[in-house]
Amino acid sequence: MSLTKFFEDYHLNYERTSTGRTITDADIVLHAGQTGDFYPHHMDEDWCKTQPFGSRIAHGTLTFSVGIGLGAGELNPEAMTYGYERLRFPNPVFINDTLKTTITIVNKYDHEKSPNTKGIVVERVITRKGNGDVVLVCDHLLLVNKNNPQDTL
Amino acid sequence: MSLTKFFEDYHLNYERTSTGRTITDADIVLHAGQTGDFYPHHMDEDWCKTQPFGSRIAHGTLTFSVGIGLGAGELNPEAMTYGYERLRFPNPVFINDTLKTTITIVNKYDHEKSPNTKGIVVERVITRKGNGDVVLVCDHLLLVNKNNPQDTL
Amino acid sequence: MSLTKFFEDYHLNYERTSTGRTITDADIVLHAGQTGDFYPHHMDEDWCKTQPFGSRIAHGTLTFSVGIGLGAGELNPEAMTYGYERLRFPNPVFINDTLKTTITIVNKYDHEKSPNTKGIVVERVITRKGNGDVVLVCDHLLLVNKNNPQDTL
Amino acid sequence: MSLTKFFEDYHLNYERTSTGRTITDADIVLHAGQTGDFYPHHMDEDWCKTQPFGSRIAHGTLTFSVGIGLGAGELNPEAMTYGYERLRFPNPVFINDTLKTTITIVNKYDHEKSPNTKGIVVERVITRKGNGDVVLVCDHLLLVNKNNPQDTL
Amino acid sequence: MSLTKFFEDYHLNYERTSTGRTITDADIVLHAGQTGDFYPHHMDEDWCKTQPFGSRIAHGTLTFSVGIGLGAGELNPEAMTYGYERLRFPNPVFINDTLKTTITIVNKYDHEKSPNTKGIVVERVITRKGNGDVVLVCDHLLLVNKNNPQDTL
Amino acid sequence: MSLTKFFEDYHLNYERTSTGRTITDADIVLHAGQTGDFYPHHMDEDWCKTQPFGSRIAHGTLTFSVGIGLGAGELNPEAMTYGYERLRFPNPVFINDTLKTTITIVNKYDHEKSPNTKGIVVERVITRKGNGDVVLVCDHLLLVNKNNPQDTL
Repeated sequence: MSLTKFFEDYHLNYERTSTGRTITDADIVLHAGQTGDFYPHHMDEDWCKTQPFGSRIAHGTLTFSVGIGLGAGELNPEAMTYGYERLRFPNPVFINDTLKTTITIVNKYDHEKSPNTKGIVVERVITRKGNGDVVLVCDHLLLVNKNNPQDTL
Repeated sequence: MSLTKFFEDYHLNYERTSTGRTITDADIVLHAGQTGDFYPHHMDEDWCKTQPFGSRIAHGTLTFSVGIGLGAGELNPEAMTYGYERLRFPNPVFINDTLKTTITIVNKYDHEKSPNTKGIVVERVITRKGNGDVVLVCDHLLLVNKNNPQDTL
Repeated sequence: MSLTKFFEDYHLNYERTSTGRTITDADIVLHAGQTGDFYPHHMDEDWCKTQPFGSRIAHGTLTFSVGIGLGAGELNPEAMTYGYERLRFPNPVFINDTLKTTITIVNKYDHEKSPNTKGIVVERVITRKGNGDVVLVCDHLLLVNKNNPQDTL
Repeated sequence: MSLTKFFEDYHLNYERTSTGRTITDADIVLHAGQTGDFYPHHMDEDWCKTQPFGSRIAHGTLTFSVGIGLGAGELNPEAMTYGYERLRFPNPVFINDTLKTTITIVNKYDHEKSPNTKGIVVERVITRKGNGDVVLVCDHLLLVNKNNPQDTL
Repeated sequence: MSLTKFFEDYHLNYERTSTGRTITDADIVLHAGQTGDFYPHHMDEDWCKTQPFGSRIAHGTLTFSVGIGLGAGELNPEAMTYGYERLRFPNPVFINDTLKTTITIVNKYDHEKSPNTKGIVVERVITRKGNGDVVLVCDHLLLVNKNNPQDTL
Repeated sequence: MSLTKFFEDYHLNYERTSTGRTITDADIVLHAGQTGDFYPHHMDEDWCKTQPFGSRIAHGTLTFSVGIGLGAGELNPEAMTYGYERLRFPNPVFINDTLKTTITIVNKYDHEKSPNTKGIVVERVITRKGNGDVVLVCDHLLLVNKNNPQDTL
């Protein structure tokens, strides 16, 4: 459940897709409880029925948490999360939507501060519903050690 | 608990700070359960003791969810989240750390696709522990309706 | 998110209404887990179908917890809860009912033990479903400091 | 686990004491999530340290929910909750306090609207910590069917 | 809520049946979170629809936990769980199934290591849905003190 | 995250060990809530201090659920759980104990009812704390399809 991969071991365009995860009522209730975000979009079914989207939707932070969590694979002791870029939620997530995350390596480059020993791997994260609608897009930046520290790209 | 604010009503450098929120053991357990991310950094105290950080740390998605949730204020029917940029986690969050979020308006500009009717407000979100350490930085992009639709900046 | 209000600042008949909160299956399951109350009214759908009310209902303590929680507004450092009176549950709460709480100041009087410095503010709490049915009524007694300690009513 | 008891079967001064229940960090986190009450008294350990009580305390609604839940015994199909009176929280509940509830029958009288068929049984509910401090007092009013409907007191 | 029973007090063929418990969506979500088992059988409604069983099913460990929990009665200080044998899950549990557990004493014998002072009581645990389908069968072995330590069977 | 393995692909003495999982206060609270088992061994710290084991311990069903969950690996569409045998809890699990599960294939044999097409693989499941103490032992019986249906052992 742990797999050592160095910067050199990440290949452009490599893609993997997660298992599916159905978002339930309980997920929204628990996430509201964790974040303190009780906006009516998530908690007030009566109000939602008066809105264009028509029923309760997941919090953006819930979609992000589950979407990223789905992509969690084997632990790589040579890599750590550097950050996320361009996080967008193109479509809302409703109760009973099933989400899957596809991760594609779209870029890799030397880490500016330590180009001889570390690099950045950019994973494009796309989470979709069963009908293909995209509900989350972002770039996940991984900071990864180089196996041959002298390497620069 | 609802407050109508148009694009024109957001002022550069306006800043607000949330109440505090102590991160507990239960938060990490519930977040692991919600995301399916059971990496040992969050779940294995014995392993964490062998690591430089020394004890279990919050998931990045938990820090983001709580940090953003702390900033949730009054509902503004004229605004919606457009996305997040440059999300970083400069320091880890440990059990019993108390977090507060400060939100500052750092930029505003016309929305490219509909400059006459909508604008983007950029909120810099910074979440800190009691000792001042920053644990989350990101830019929250709000898409906000203009009150006087002819306005362009 | 904190607002200082003295006894003199509370006005009879002042009324406010909360946002809405839909009670879900998950709320009942979590509340049973928190209280240890697994009575079939809350946990046994088959049995409930044989009863006049026809399906699972929320615990009274859940209705009270959510109803009161909905009314939680800004923190007032000059006030604290003294107690509750005449707590009643006129109608049951079913899964998918959306609750809102209305709070009205119905009485205020000097605190018997320290009439020069403190008073009691009585808030009538009424929680209703979307169809208007009342599910919770009680009086919330607030013990509030006086701004001009010599005042008695 | 069901025990039929009529109004005539409840005896003044009958007393029973529950098992114990330790209030944990997780209980407070879950209750905040259920109620949406994120006041710093419950959620902000840093702030609590600056206050006289010194550390996070349970919500009143949590103390009530657990205190009442502890008293839930066998289901009696002839009785239902009519309401609660004089609810008070004389002392705060801290994390790791263990609570027990003692229930004593302190009064019984005919139900005003249907004195021939129903009566009210008043249970005094007192919840204490291990050190004897009382954290909850209230009167629980039970509406109970009479076995011999002609009886009036 | 505590009842002392010695080995001699357990009688062959004694049977008791629990109250009912409806399994909900929230139970499955919480159990996945507790165990880390996010197999699609429990979490992916879209995938389940392509399978013979047709919709999400409870984890075996959830069925076991709830089935055994339903049988938890009064605390007996003279008995402890020795183990379980022949645990089987003949039918799947779906969301909204209501479970009841029947426990029958099917065997009792001296404890091999301390036959003079302890015995084993075997409880057959059978958990059924409302329609009679069995979802859990196992034997629960209780290690119980003898009242008259000289007894052997 | 899915890996097809037939009966022939399971090899005696093959062993794998899981990641670690620290049992927390929150796990016990959530499990009590899920099962309805509020015995003082799990919920009453004051009482536990008067007992030989000295502090709250995990439910057996929690130890089983987590221990088995830790062993959940890749999904094998050719296998399903047949049952569990000889489940024992040799030592109690305390809050902050970190558990790991080791699974070893100890036996395999033809399925009695369909020996030409299916076999039983027996996995010995042993869950240990960091100090080596065993807290769970059982045999997990897997029913696995044969790749070459004519095979019998």
